Amino acid sequence: MRDAYQDELDGLAGGLADMCGEVAAALEKATRSLLECDLQLAEEVISEDIKVDEIRAAAEEKAFALLALQAPVATDLRIVVSAIHGAGDIERMGDLALHVAQAARRRHPQPVLPEEVKPYFAEMGRVGVALALKAGEVIRTRDLAAAAELETDDDAMDDLHRHMFTVLMDRNWTHGVAAAVDVTLLARFYERYADHAVAVARRIVYVVTGRMPGPVTV
Amino acid sequence: MRDAYQDELDGLAGGLADMCGEVAAALEKATRSLLECDLQLAEEVISEDIKVDEIRAAAEEKAFALLALQAPVATDLRIVVSAIHGAGDIERMGDLALHVAQAARRRHPQPVLPEEVKPYFAEMGRVGVALALKAGEVIRTRDLAAAAELETDDDAMDDLHRHMFTVLMDRNWTHGVAAAVDVTLLARFYERYADHAVAVARRIVYVVTGRMPGPVTV
Repeated sequence: MRDAYQDELDGLAGGLADMCGEVAAALEKATRSLLECDLQLAEEVISEDIKVDEIRAAAEEKAFALLALQAPVATDLRIVVSAIHGAGDIERMGDLALHVAQAARRRHPQPVLPEEVKPYFAEMGRVGVALALKAGEVIRTRDLAAAAELETDDDAMDDLHRHMFTVLMDRNWTHGVAAAVDVTLLARFYERYADHAVAVARRIVYVVTGRMPGPVTV
Repeated sequence: MRDAYQDELDGLAGGLADMCGEVAAALEKATRSLLECDLQLAEEVISEDIKVDEIRAAAEEKAFALLALQAPVATDLRIVVSAIHGAGDIERMGDLALHVAQAARRRHPQPVLPEEVKPYFAEMGRVGVALALKAGEVIRTRDLAAAAELETDDDAMDDLHRHMFTVLMDRNWTHGVAAAVDVTLLARFYERYADHAVAVARRIVYVVTGRMPGPVTV
């Protein structure tokens, strides 16, 4: 009986780690669709978001069943509660990747991004995808050193995000208000994506140590 | 024993409803600080956000203790799980009100908003505050009709949000890129604030009916 229970707990974590893989792939594709004005890639991200929603719903049901039937305590209870939070964060990461793809589709065949900001978005995409993959690894391994790394990796995203504003506010911005609005929102989507990955890692620190490392939302 | 347990469940809901009152007050003040360039009001919102974070932490601890010590099932378990989600949503609403206040402070004594968009933000503030208060009422009363109203009220926010983009994209926008960037982000903060209020109400529908009404995140 206890073994089946441990399997269920492991399955819950495995589902969330898989979900991280899905939203990493979504952001990778969404970023490419944005940079390369690739409508087909954008459509793929948009139609595949339902998968992430389904894994989230399944994870929540699994967590609920574990609570109702097994009444876990201590570390096991922290695992289940953190899974409930984590599923929400990771689903939101999927939504944000979806928003990026929707922006690419909305402007197609026009590019959303002026050439001069594309390198920043390529980098924000790279950092975001790496954060999602690392969050998945932290869920699987409960490696606290890796969890701490996400905070540092997120600093890189924050720097990129801040830098985008410097570029936008510069008098040499020649791309007009509409492009500035798109760039503002897109940069915000990447930054929030990264915040949610960090929140997932922090919840794992809580699972292992019983303490939350600082505030979850920044 | 069961009475103390019911008291704890009620206390958990009561704490969340109070939290809704706090974030409604925060958005009301943040909006005024924005419209009237009132630095002192902005500072109040910024320094009071910690209160919301503390109520959230207390609510999560209470929920965790209930799960560990009482092993609730059925409706009671849905109450506790929904409280965990709700606390996260309401804390985020507080963060978004904080972001509005921070924008007001950052530009002080310059106004953040051009005169022509102030009426829209006054209205977004009014709708947001009403949504937060109604979400608190839904938590207290579990009134499904009121919960359904939040969806309609949120449509008003979405309309305002979309309209802001029309104004920004208009060729007659004469306030430059920096103001457009501020308006874009601020409008997004109000829209997300409303989304979280709707998510809270949806969780109460789930508590009562056992079913989620549509996707939580939009």
